[in-house]
Amino acid sequence: MARKVRMGMVGGGRGAFIGGVHRMAAALDGQIELVCGAFSSDPERSRLSGGDLFLPPERSYGSYAEMIEKEKALPEGERMDFVSIVTPNHVHYGPAKMALENGFHVVCDKPLAFNLEEANNLMQLVEETGLLFALTHNYTGYPMVKHARQMISSGQIGAVRKVVVEYPQGWLATRLEETGQKQAGWRTDPKRSGAAGAMGDIGTHAENLAEYMTGLKIKELCADLSIFVDGRLLDDDGSVLLRFDNGAKGILFASQIAVGEENNLNIRVYGEKGGLEWHQQEPNTLVAKWLDQPTQILRTGVGDLAAAAQAHTRIPAGHPEGYLEAFANIYRNFAKCLQARLAGVAVDPIYDDFPTVSDGVRGMQFIEKVVASSANGAVWTDF
Amino acid sequence: MARKVRMGMVGGGRGAFIGGVHRMAAALDGQIELVCGAFSSDPERSRLSGGDLFLPPERSYGSYAEMIEKEKALPEGERMDFVSIVTPNHVHYGPAKMALENGFHVVCDKPLAFNLEEANNLMQLVEETGLLFALTHNYTGYPMVKHARQMISSGQIGAVRKVVVEYPQGWLATRLEETGQKQAGWRTDPKRSGAAGAMGDIGTHAENLAEYMTGLKIKELCADLSIFVDGRLLDDDGSVLLRFDNGAKGILFASQIAVGEENNLNIRVYGEKGGLEWHQQEPNTLVAKWLDQPTQILRTGVGDLAAAAQAHTRIPAGHPEGYLEAFANIYRNFAKCLQARLAGVAVDPIYDDFPTVSDGVRGMQFIEKVVASSANGAVWTDF
Amino acid sequence: MARKVRMGMVGGGRGAFIGGVHRMAAALDGQIELVCGAFSSDPERSRLSGGDLFLPPERSYGSYAEMIEKEKALPEGERMDFVSIVTPNHVHYGPAKMALENGFHVVCDKPLAFNLEEANNLMQLVEETGLLFALTHNYTGYPMVKHARQMISSGQIGAVRKVVVEYPQGWLATRLEETGQKQAGWRTDPKRSGAAGAMGDIGTHAENLAEYMTGLKIKELCADLSIFVDGRLLDDDGSVLLRFDNGAKGILFASQIAVGEENNLNIRVYGEKGGLEWHQQEPNTLVAKWLDQPTQILRTGVGDLAAAAQAHTRIPAGHPEGYLEAFANIYRNFAKCLQARLAGVAVDPIYDDFPTVSDGVRGMQFIEKVVASSANGAVWTDF
Amino acid sequence: MARKVRMGMVGGGRGAFIGGVHRMAAALDGQIELVCGAFSSDPERSRLSGGDLFLPPERSYGSYAEMIEKEKALPEGERMDFVSIVTPNHVHYGPAKMALENGFHVVCDKPLAFNLEEANNLMQLVEETGLLFALTHNYTGYPMVKHARQMISSGQIGAVRKVVVEYPQGWLATRLEETGQKQAGWRTDPKRSGAAGAMGDIGTHAENLAEYMTGLKIKELCADLSIFVDGRLLDDDGSVLLRFDNGAKGILFASQIAVGEENNLNIRVYGEKGGLEWHQQEPNTLVAKWLDQPTQILRTGVGDLAAAAQAHTRIPAGHPEGYLEAFANIYRNFAKCLQARLAGVAVDPIYDDFPTVSDGVRGMQFIEKVVASSANGAVWTDF
Repeated sequence: MARKVRMGMVGGGRGAFIGGVHRMAAALDGQIELVCGAFSSDPERSRLSGGDLFLPPERSYGSYAEMIEKEKALPEGERMDFVSIVTPNHVHYGPAKMALENGFHVVCDKPLAFNLEEANNLMQLVEETGLLFALTHNYTGYPMVKHARQMISSGQIGAVRKVVVEYPQGWLATRLEETGQKQAGWRTDPKRSGAAGAMGDIGTHAENLAEYMTGLKIKELCADLSIFVDGRLLDDDGSVLLRFDNGAKGILFASQIAVGEENNLNIRVYGEKGGLEWHQQEPNTLVAKWLDQPTQILRTGVGDLAAAAQAHTRIPAGHPEGYLEAFANIYRNFAKCLQARLAGVAVDPIYDDFPTVSDGVRGMQFIEKVVASSANGAVWTDF
Repeated sequence: MARKVRMGMVGGGRGAFIGGVHRMAAALDGQIELVCGAFSSDPERSRLSGGDLFLPPERSYGSYAEMIEKEKALPEGERMDFVSIVTPNHVHYGPAKMALENGFHVVCDKPLAFNLEEANNLMQLVEETGLLFALTHNYTGYPMVKHARQMISSGQIGAVRKVVVEYPQGWLATRLEETGQKQAGWRTDPKRSGAAGAMGDIGTHAENLAEYMTGLKIKELCADLSIFVDGRLLDDDGSVLLRFDNGAKGILFASQIAVGEENNLNIRVYGEKGGLEWHQQEPNTLVAKWLDQPTQILRTGVGDLAAAAQAHTRIPAGHPEGYLEAFANIYRNFAKCLQARLAGVAVDPIYDDFPTVSDGVRGMQFIEKVVASSANGAVWTDF
Repeated sequence: MARKVRMGMVGGGRGAFIGGVHRMAAALDGQIELVCGAFSSDPERSRLSGGDLFLPPERSYGSYAEMIEKEKALPEGERMDFVSIVTPNHVHYGPAKMALENGFHVVCDKPLAFNLEEANNLMQLVEETGLLFALTHNYTGYPMVKHARQMISSGQIGAVRKVVVEYPQGWLATRLEETGQKQAGWRTDPKRSGAAGAMGDIGTHAENLAEYMTGLKIKELCADLSIFVDGRLLDDDGSVLLRFDNGAKGILFASQIAVGEENNLNIRVYGEKGGLEWHQQEPNTLVAKWLDQPTQILRTGVGDLAAAAQAHTRIPAGHPEGYLEAFANIYRNFAKCLQARLAGVAVDPIYDDFPTVSDGVRGMQFIEKVVASSANGAVWTDF
Repeated sequence: MARKVRMGMVGGGRGAFIGGVHRMAAALDGQIELVCGAFSSDPERSRLSGGDLFLPPERSYGSYAEMIEKEKALPEGERMDFVSIVTPNHVHYGPAKMALENGFHVVCDKPLAFNLEEANNLMQLVEETGLLFALTHNYTGYPMVKHARQMISSGQIGAVRKVVVEYPQGWLATRLEETGQKQAGWRTDPKRSGAAGAMGDIGTHAENLAEYMTGLKIKELCADLSIFVDGRLLDDDGSVLLRFDNGAKGILFASQIAVGEENNLNIRVYGEKGGLEWHQQEPNTLVAKWLDQPTQILRTGVGDLAAAAQAHTRIPAGHPEGYLEAFANIYRNFAKCLQARLAGVAVDPIYDDFPTVSDGVRGMQFIEKVVASSANGAVWTDF
């Protein structure tokens, strides 16, 4: 019989941002229970954070290593089933590796790791252990993204010719990292963020969205990265020309200095017979354009959408679902797969739909390639 | 020390709509635990529904009466703290009354009751018992609604002159109730819905939003209700002229035959110096219009919003929050007030902000007045 | 053989607004030549205004009476064919009457006259003389309005149930007429504007648009007019409930105190099978909503639009046509009818489509009825 | 004393598109009179076309050479003042050169010529003769483009960092040129269009808009052009990375295979302190984004816009002005400059604002550079 699956969290203590998002996303559908955490590398802070979440003190651990060890020692009906890793990039690899090595499934924030080597090691570990691994490229959790993917894969817009994917933000248009702002601090620090700034933080989301929605793979790219804010060490803006494996062309634009933009991830895909347009900030709408018919406004919950879109929608049309719901779709699907695994049954294929470690490896490759292309003078580079 | 508060649900079993919404809203912020339910008047269906939610069979009750009795008999550390009522209108009064009489706090879906008499009785009971009572006029839970309310109350747009509030839907443009569709069935049935159809189901939301946002009270109204679908017994469309207590004029338009409209609640308020416009389907945007300056696009999470707006926002700008988050704001605030009550401390006033039984009474008055006005030939009627 | 038709203008001298609009509209399509004018009641100002327009001094007259007399005396190949009247409301009747009595066709700005009696007299004169008379309810000149009209008349959205037409402006939210602003001055002056303020100036456009687009007639109305700006003598805001001859219901909202609104005429029409929505400020778009299909964005120049829409479109899709083009459609059609009349041939019926004196009479009736309804306490009044 | 200036047209006979646009644009403001034309290389077709326009047969010429010769022989008070050239690209150079050599001013459609050599020759001729030369890069005629230019030049958004300019159309997504469609025919024919297809037809507009609005110059570019429609000989899509002279980066995207796009020219400019966004299809709106304030919706006719914006606006806010009005601004300014020249007085500098032969040369350089960059493998190329 199915039960709630039990989550232990790494990171996400007081003052963090994405940890709270993961907890809300995990809680929304009632399939997951938070049972423990190593919320901070400071044991006292971790304990206080656990208290905020109504956890007993003995399950707020002082380190991820302690958590994994002690949880492993608990009886099966009590110990956590999986680890959720919500730390900065340079602290993904350690807990993910140890969790996998100790038999715990993993949900990990993106990008997968600090560098490609770590990513490849994790992929190998996942293959060896057979454990479940979800990477929270959450934007693919939106119903209308899934509907677009189905429209494209079923040929409704014909062969894809052009993809324009953008992810402009403006919050790093000034040197925010100098003010002590925690999110800006680690994202602009090569020691914690990795080889890329904006391209790692949000460019990878754009890359993942484009490939997920179109089903195509980027084959070559030409990237012109910039650092516009004086004194910054990592790219805060980049333009990338893309060539896909089917001959389609593309443009990827990611920026954190686009003043006044909030979180404006958007994508346009043009095929031989139709075009699609989706904006994350208005995620319940998918615009479909046609050769010989009026443009259509497809909406979450309206009409005969793809089964995958319907299965990832909770409420009727016109009741907007947002970021947390899309994020929760990743967790819900992961939980359903895990419940099936625990129950020894096959999962409904509709739920077997979340980004995995292989998406994470691809994201790390993307980071390495755009950085290399740009460093070499913005030249074409195989991907 | 604070703890999660414990919820028992009345209604919301398999096949229901709003029950699931309440559960997700209650779960989102990790302050509330579902511990029991009387999910259906059919005991077996109730038990199965409870199982879907991972509840033990002994806490899936066959009736709300059984639930209230048996929970009352449980030890204090275990029994539910409050009842959440998510049944059709004609089954609000019974469980709400019994819960209050037995010392349980209440969250109730809107409209408050089947008729004004029931509503007045509930208000009296709440006053007598001193228990907490939240009514889920959820649309007032949106951050930008709270920001608009603060802009108006602080005089930023000057004295309000005109209010236009609309709630068009199209889902009842055909005789859907004949097809066995459960939601359409009870909403169009005078025995379960009450004296009004569209005006009760969604007109009350519009009335509540207008009064909440502006801080004004409707003083007189003139309503022209219609039944457009043949054979239907309750209004499916209505236009209402409004006069407010400060001399402002208004228009309220609610319809369920507005073909192609999803859930398009929206409001415009014009004052002496500025105007505000908000659309529920794009809830993170508030448009502010001015005499001598460009129109501004105010957005959830951007800039220096009212404290109440900030306190009801979970994630950064551009990460859209939707219907469930607004709904969850009602539950979160209710839970915070209840936790403070249980701990014997004062609640942070920012959380003491949710619709109560008095909003419910006002909604029932609205229903009675618009029905009377229209029945008398669409004449002006005091409110 | 066709030739350009010759226009004489009454009003529209230096400092005027709508006169220039009429001249641009008349010039756009190359069918009309401005040959003379009585641009001001001040002969010197009229002469200077004529000079600005490259007219010879002898054809810039000191009064409309002089113009009509002297032009009548010119040889047929030279004298004006029609008079265009662009003065404030109280100076419509005089020149229109005299022009008709002297055999000149007329184009007249709206509303038709100062009161209903004048309007009825003009209608009688038009009937007696058989001359052409166009009234510039210019908003019906937009292609997408014509397409909507055709969609409705051909039954595509089924029988109309509900009409919501709005015309909010904000420019009179303060007492602008006290500042010497000429447009505000006469529009708020009962001696020059007539019995109504906002309802006459823009409410009549809304009424005309609703009836033109739907093909229905308003049968009863209930109007609540207001004067919000202290010291003003005519309504600056009004809400009107409507009942149409087919049983449809409606709301008409016109205001000049809606702060921040520019010229936001818009209409929504809901039928049994579909809904239409059009906004004058984005006039090339018509939104079509359906029971069972996605919402469609119909656009000027795209796809298979109604013949009337195509005939009133000049340039390809995506090249926005605006207010002047719609206004020019009235003039172009009037000119085509006049050319055919002069040539003694039948006009292509596609051009026999412009508002006439009977639309003007209906507008004046509307003004009288809304003023009466409101004065009697906002009661239902036959129309 | 000022008079209307007299225009002779080359091209634009029956069946043409852009000729009619030029005539409407020239007529709108009453400053220009069409007096003659060589509307077609077929003399009979030219004569018939002239008749459609109410021209006398003797001034509908059989060739541009005939027109220039015969008009030159007419008395000064009668002969044309300037030539307007509205033929396909390969027939720009001949009439422009001959007109200049014979003392006639010129308005020419874009791109300036068939290749860069012709363009350079024309620039030299303009310099030598001192005659006026306008190139109809009409999109810079929009008031909000001029306002954006002024905001940038005055430093309101700080130093520009990023420019994204797009011009997607969809009309050539299929092989329309095979169907006999005239516009498609010459634009896809290297013998009539020149070295580029989409990049020449619309890419040059995007380049011109970006440089006009920002005041920056493109210094380097990297272009990846494509031919997506089988059998086509010229690019129908292209993506270009840009580097500007101040260090700003850019993306230019032009396509004629973007299915469902009409004429969606748009631009975003991000500076250190603000961002601007403008869409040609909704040209009366300019979105201004800021570091620390809400996004503003700037609108034609509203508030305190730049003098250049106000001088190119004809009607009050909310009365949409479109493509023809922007196009007419080019003609109006050209006419004002020509009137001043004829009268021997200085022109008001506000009117000395239209694209000239030097913009045309830059456009031809752009075409040559993007074609070369792409042909060399999409490599960086100096501009």
